[in-house]
Amino acid sequence: MRILLVGAGGVGSAVVPIAARRDFFEHIVVADSQQSRAARAVAGVDDPRFSAITLDASDRAQVEAALREHRCDVLFNAVDPRFTMPLFEAALAAGAHYLDMAMSLSRPHPSEPYRMPGVKLGDRQFALDGAWREADRLALVGMGVEPGLADVFARYAADHLFSSIEEIGVRDGSNLVVDGYDFAPTFSIWTTIEECLNPPVVWEDGRWHTTEPFSEPEVFDFPAGIGPVECVNVEHEEVLLVPRWIPARRVTFKYGLGEEFIGVLKTLRKLGLDSAEKVRVGGAEVAPRDLVAARLPDPATLGERMHGKTCAGTWVKGLGKDGVPREVYLYHVVDNDWSMREYGSQAVVWQTAVHPVVALELVARGVWKGAGVLGPEAFDAVPFLDLLHEYGSPWEMREERQAAA
Amino acid sequence: MRILLVGAGGVGSAVVPIAARRDFFEHIVVADSQQSRAARAVAGVDDPRFSAITLDASDRAQVEAALREHRCDVLFNAVDPRFTMPLFEAALAAGAHYLDMAMSLSRPHPSEPYRMPGVKLGDRQFALDGAWREADRLALVGMGVEPGLADVFARYAADHLFSSIEEIGVRDGSNLVVDGYDFAPTFSIWTTIEECLNPPVVWEDGRWHTTEPFSEPEVFDFPAGIGPVECVNVEHEEVLLVPRWIPARRVTFKYGLGEEFIGVLKTLRKLGLDSAEKVRVGGAEVAPRDLVAARLPDPATLGERMHGKTCAGTWVKGLGKDGVPREVYLYHVVDNDWSMREYGSQAVVWQTAVHPVVALELVARGVWKGAGVLGPEAFDAVPFLDLLHEYGSPWEMREERQAAA
Repeated sequence: MRILLVGAGGVGSAVVPIAARRDFFEHIVVADSQQSRAARAVAGVDDPRFSAITLDASDRAQVEAALREHRCDVLFNAVDPRFTMPLFEAALAAGAHYLDMAMSLSRPHPSEPYRMPGVKLGDRQFALDGAWREADRLALVGMGVEPGLADVFARYAADHLFSSIEEIGVRDGSNLVVDGYDFAPTFSIWTTIEECLNPPVVWEDGRWHTTEPFSEPEVFDFPAGIGPVECVNVEHEEVLLVPRWIPARRVTFKYGLGEEFIGVLKTLRKLGLDSAEKVRVGGAEVAPRDLVAARLPDPATLGERMHGKTCAGTWVKGLGKDGVPREVYLYHVVDNDWSMREYGSQAVVWQTAVHPVVALELVARGVWKGAGVLGPEAFDAVPFLDLLHEYGSPWEMREERQAAA
Repeated sequence: MRILLVGAGGVGSAVVPIAARRDFFEHIVVADSQQSRAARAVAGVDDPRFSAITLDASDRAQVEAALREHRCDVLFNAVDPRFTMPLFEAALAAGAHYLDMAMSLSRPHPSEPYRMPGVKLGDRQFALDGAWREADRLALVGMGVEPGLADVFARYAADHLFSSIEEIGVRDGSNLVVDGYDFAPTFSIWTTIEECLNPPVVWEDGRWHTTEPFSEPEVFDFPAGIGPVECVNVEHEEVLLVPRWIPARRVTFKYGLGEEFIGVLKTLRKLGLDSAEKVRVGGAEVAPRDLVAARLPDPATLGERMHGKTCAGTWVKGLGKDGVPREVYLYHVVDNDWSMREYGSQAVVWQTAVHPVVALELVARGVWKGAGVLGPEAFDAVPFLDLLHEYGSPWEMREERQAAA
């Protein structure tokens, strides 16, 4: 397998040392709009299977040419979701497989944004499902940690733990702190604003609906010493992916932002500073969200100052295989000290980067195969979860209190 | 008296209809960097005593030339405090008197910003006191509502109500709401950020010191139905002016921002979006604070959507003329419905605009006279407070509960 990895930001750079320990691929071409970033990512490992090129991810023709020139079988998209569509289309046109960790962006409903979805996350990709099937190529979408591992957990629960499922709720939280900053998000603020301020989407009784941002706050008690964190509904791919393959009455995604972060995001929205549209200020034109991102430290550079653990997981409630009410939380924890020591990557970035590598290994070995636009829950979860152990980063399961019968 | 009014923003424009009802001056030239703004302000009154010109307030030579060309006796500075020094220097050079409502800006102490002042508000102006005296010209500084009327109140209390003063605390609060906006400040956000996020200054026991922003929160009960509002220390001119002329053990300024506004300002600071220094974002250069201002509605245009009252006043605690502990709050309330109906100006802007006009009338009539850089408390308060009644906007006094002896 020859892979074109597009994006040498936090996650893309973290992919390199993870993949370098595996032997399932022949070559990975690391591409970035900044040659220096791609070169730095490759220089981090002493491995001739990696090379670096410059590439503009927004230029479909250029991406297609790179896929052909480097004879890549797979395009691995590790840039922000603004570039999903050109990359997705370039892979299809070049006859390559495709993997991403964030799907094509949504557009709110024009008149009822907080009641019903408009264009949903991934809609533009699923619209091309027929073309991918016809080309007999696989577009594995939403294959990071969340979405990604969270969807694998949902599939595992449906196949091996439950006879019927009432609710699947992805829950993400951490106790990470960053020394020396008043405020320093541990993940891309651009993406966090996008997913938190768009109307959250919920699957319920056979249809999707949306709510006001930050709806249904709950305190979720995270494992591994993280403890209780305030979580709220946000827009996330799992809610759009899981119901396509797994029957459940309700699917939600709640992000453990914590009170402070929720307050910051609400203020950005109140002041119109969340907008990604350019506005005129004096003689200059700038998107408020880009300015916010420019003022904050780059999360990928904060690993040395970070402490704590991050937890991604899927909580499932329903009837067990024996017909008895059951509630479980399937989860994956990364300790920042461990990921920094082992891989030189901070925990959130590392946790996002490991799962697509595992998935590509399963595809390379022919364990996961298919054609069309498919989510992680379209495949057998067991080989994935087993292989994750081999990557030194095991998942776990917590049996929750019995639900009221 | 011929006046060059520099700035046809909210306050400058509100000055025009107030002055138009008075006969103490011969002519007012309204100057603004945008010809259309100056022309619009003048067009609002049908009075040949007003004319409009274009002027760059940052260009000292241009301002000086305008003073001479239009034979103005007084420069009335109604632009934001970034332009205070060029205007102040231009007036001195042209042999004109000068009035402003906000003094030259401060610079925090380089190593101990939250413990001691660096360059204080007005320091650069007071440094030229000798030159103003020598020129026998008056620079009446800090002569809006706060600073301005608040300082007049302090002088009145010292002369007529107290034998000794323990504390003078300016307290500003409102119950104004703006229909149709999530968040819409009723006063310049640029200035609000400047005064609220700079280290607040406090006069105590014969010296100035600074604190962390938002220090010493207290709930002050405002009169006229406004009720209790959360107030915090902010940097304000009164604290620098009052102690120069009035003996008091302690002088503070607390702004009734309310919890929501305090939250917004804290978040702007946390994210570095308060900065007035330009930063690079993509190909553009922009000051975060300018972007914040550009995203919010212009407060001067919100009058029709505003409801409620704004209150400015001075709380004084000490021993009365009879030696008995006394506590009073001297205050001035403007109801937005009234100021919109009577003058077409929103309450906060109108309240800032009326007091410098009253002061100029006292100067024109020779009631207030002097040479040098002088604050409002350097003059007899009684004629000012009497004249305010004549302007249809009376002040009031509330006798507070007796302090513990």
